Amino acid sequence: MEVNDILKIPKSDNPRIVIIGGGFAGIQMAKMLDKKPVQVVLFDRHNYHTFQPLLYQVATAGLEPDAIAGPLRKIIEKSRNVHFRMAMVNEINTNENTVYTEKGNLQYDYLVIAAGSKTNYFGNYENLKKAFPLKQVPQALDLRSHILQNFEQAVLTSDEEQLNKLLNIVIVGGGPTGVELAGAIGELKKHVMPHDYPELDLSKMNIYLAEGLDRLLAGMSEFADKKAQQYLKKFDVQVKLGSMVTEFDGETVTFKNGEKLTSSTLIWAAGVRGNLIKGMPETSIEKSMYIVDEFNKVINTENIYAVGDNAFMKSDKRPKGYPMLAPVAMQQGENLANNILRKINNKKLKPFKYTNRGTMATIGRNRAIAELPNKIRFGGFFAWIAWMFVHLIQIVGFRSKIVILANWIWNYFTYDRGTRLIIRPYTPPKVEDLKKEEETDR
Amino acid sequence: MEVNDILKIPKSDNPRIVIIGGGFAGIQMAKMLDKKPVQVVLFDRHNYHTFQPLLYQVATAGLEPDAIAGPLRKIIEKSRNVHFRMAMVNEINTNENTVYTEKGNLQYDYLVIAAGSKTNYFGNYENLKKAFPLKQVPQALDLRSHILQNFEQAVLTSDEEQLNKLLNIVIVGGGPTGVELAGAIGELKKHVMPHDYPELDLSKMNIYLAEGLDRLLAGMSEFADKKAQQYLKKFDVQVKLGSMVTEFDGETVTFKNGEKLTSSTLIWAAGVRGNLIKGMPETSIEKSMYIVDEFNKVINTENIYAVGDNAFMKSDKRPKGYPMLAPVAMQQGENLANNILRKINNKKLKPFKYTNRGTMATIGRNRAIAELPNKIRFGGFFAWIAWMFVHLIQIVGFRSKIVILANWIWNYFTYDRGTRLIIRPYTPPKVEDLKKEEETDR
Repeated sequence: MEVNDILKIPKSDNPRIVIIGGGFAGIQMAKMLDKKPVQVVLFDRHNYHTFQPLLYQVATAGLEPDAIAGPLRKIIEKSRNVHFRMAMVNEINTNENTVYTEKGNLQYDYLVIAAGSKTNYFGNYENLKKAFPLKQVPQALDLRSHILQNFEQAVLTSDEEQLNKLLNIVIVGGGPTGVELAGAIGELKKHVMPHDYPELDLSKMNIYLAEGLDRLLAGMSEFADKKAQQYLKKFDVQVKLGSMVTEFDGETVTFKNGEKLTSSTLIWAAGVRGNLIKGMPETSIEKSMYIVDEFNKVINTENIYAVGDNAFMKSDKRPKGYPMLAPVAMQQGENLANNILRKINNKKLKPFKYTNRGTMATIGRNRAIAELPNKIRFGGFFAWIAWMFVHLIQIVGFRSKIVILANWIWNYFTYDRGTRLIIRPYTPPKVEDLKKEEETDR
Repeated sequence: MEVNDILKIPKSDNPRIVIIGGGFAGIQMAKMLDKKPVQVVLFDRHNYHTFQPLLYQVATAGLEPDAIAGPLRKIIEKSRNVHFRMAMVNEINTNENTVYTEKGNLQYDYLVIAAGSKTNYFGNYENLKKAFPLKQVPQALDLRSHILQNFEQAVLTSDEEQLNKLLNIVIVGGGPTGVELAGAIGELKKHVMPHDYPELDLSKMNIYLAEGLDRLLAGMSEFADKKAQQYLKKFDVQVKLGSMVTEFDGETVTFKNGEKLTSSTLIWAAGVRGNLIKGMPETSIEKSMYIVDEFNKVINTENIYAVGDNAFMKSDKRPKGYPMLAPVAMQQGENLANNILRKINNKKLKPFKYTNRGTMATIGRNRAIAELPNKIRFGGFFAWIAWMFVHLIQIVGFRSKIVILANWIWNYFTYDRGTRLIIRPYTPPKVEDLKKEEETDR
């Protein structure tokens, strides 16, 4: 293994495992491989891990980014054999066992693709480019400022059409993200905004949740669908089933059946697709994922693995593979880390086995839906408590746990959202503008 | 008083007080005038109040914006006679008693200019446009990301010159902001970055504090200057007195005496100047401030007042007026609010009297300098405790107090900075890029 002079990876006699992506699978692996006889290099384009299940709470002014984003260097702080490099991986050369990053190239003995997924516009991005995606922290902050700015503008508006445009919010996608987001916005409308905007008639604000299928939470039971619709009604969310959005120009939302809605806020939570990286064999790709065997090894490769949202592990029992969920990613990461260690020690590998610990979704305050694998299903307040508990357990880092818990307690008892700040990027003034100003001032 | 149709200010028989700016003076006045027989309209270009004394802790990854920025609507939430409009005031028409904002015009009975100050480049902005200012939340976030990005880049660098450029930080201005910022960056270097970047030789990182005068903390005693220099030395900050920076091109800092330093980070904390608004009489302006009488009324006007950083209240005793400090702004706001009420009731006005409760500056952990008005001066640990206590008392809102205290406790005991996140603004992908990607994926 060469000593890498560009990426400054120290010399090591141990095999090098390169992990692309510091998501759930990536950091799980980095932690498992800590102090093991391997060298780990973790790449991510951000310097932090994002706890995506709570990203919508950043978008709805419930949490600041530090609550759900943990610096990756903090996570691997005590690992001397794990190295982080902030870089985007652009290409893989499978013949030379090399990844090409924007900062430099690096050889690997084992490569793990844990690059996660991005917003899926299903080939229709051209007509949806004004929609707000919700997969990254900067997107959530942008959406937060946009919604609050619209409220400030609505205060100055009496034109009905204009008010609809500013206040209406359309969410596309009836999965957990869409449902939880709709609940959070419903809570904003019902409990937070009336205090902030006594001058606004909030009955003019319509929240729509549009889903192409004829039900919500397709990954869960019919009980969950029924409960979700019931809870969303309490927060004045209008659920539109069998509704496909085909176009959004920033002012009008157009549905497939020709229906139109006025709104300047369309949030696109309709789906994700895996981040593919250039250079992988065409034969190993299906549905924007890498086809993997039961050990997460990408087919038609020797030493390349894909996990989580990047892995398509189909079997007779699961022809569609596993759902794109954090627990799948974490468990695959854990199993793969152990398998690589077994392989190095010439031990027998263990196939991936998914342990479904249940699924949950929360809808506004006091309401959630929980489904355990033994078909126990419950909704309401206790599901909500369980939802909070499970998310606090899962979030990475003790500091984030405290920050989130403190914010939740505050938001719950005060009906307040502490982070409703409109923060737009800083752009320095132009020289001629400031010169003119300095001349006018004295 | 007309009913304003554009800015949607409700009809009222009470006199209307328009306040420009939700800084220390502005919110103090809004609070004092709550439930009084006046109508108050508060304008600010942001929807939040910024606690500027702690802005440098956002820039150095110690706090998130929600700790120091409080939504203005929250502050006036229970006031039915106080109205907030997020708008920039562009011009004042003193003949028509009208302010022109970007959103619409509004008449006033009393106008209060509390617009605060901005970074002062002393006419040299053209040569300093690459410098980082530190007066607003977006600027602090930009600086935070810049510093952290430089560290990530430094990991990949062995070229000595390049390392200097990435790691060196030059702070211009030996006032409280510059001194506190230098201490915070010194702490980053000494206690935080060594954990995060074991691969970096941090002895290559130089922190310079440049000040044009031959001393630090010119507003305080010589004792404070001496102590500040002594404490800064503990954090490896190199103080350069009598040093004027004249140019910065993003790579090299040039001093007046011809000396050059390599750095890509120049933070400009050398001074501020009042935000002037178009349309005020020329004769009432001096040194970018409005000349006011002892009741904060702007000279040569009838019903226009200026407070805080916008007011130049000179007297024989204080030919230079009052310092641009938060306590001055708050006390002037309080006195003016009472005076306007007195005026409405035809009572005798009270001239402004400044109560100096002392000044403080902190330098890294465990060290601060405090000066009480009775010439009691002390430094070290107890001054540091006092500094924290005073800032927690002053910060607006119970939530911010908790957030800051919790962060300080965490940062102190863990030597951690939880918000060291590189968050750059979200820019949507271009249609052609995403199309190409979608075609390549399958």
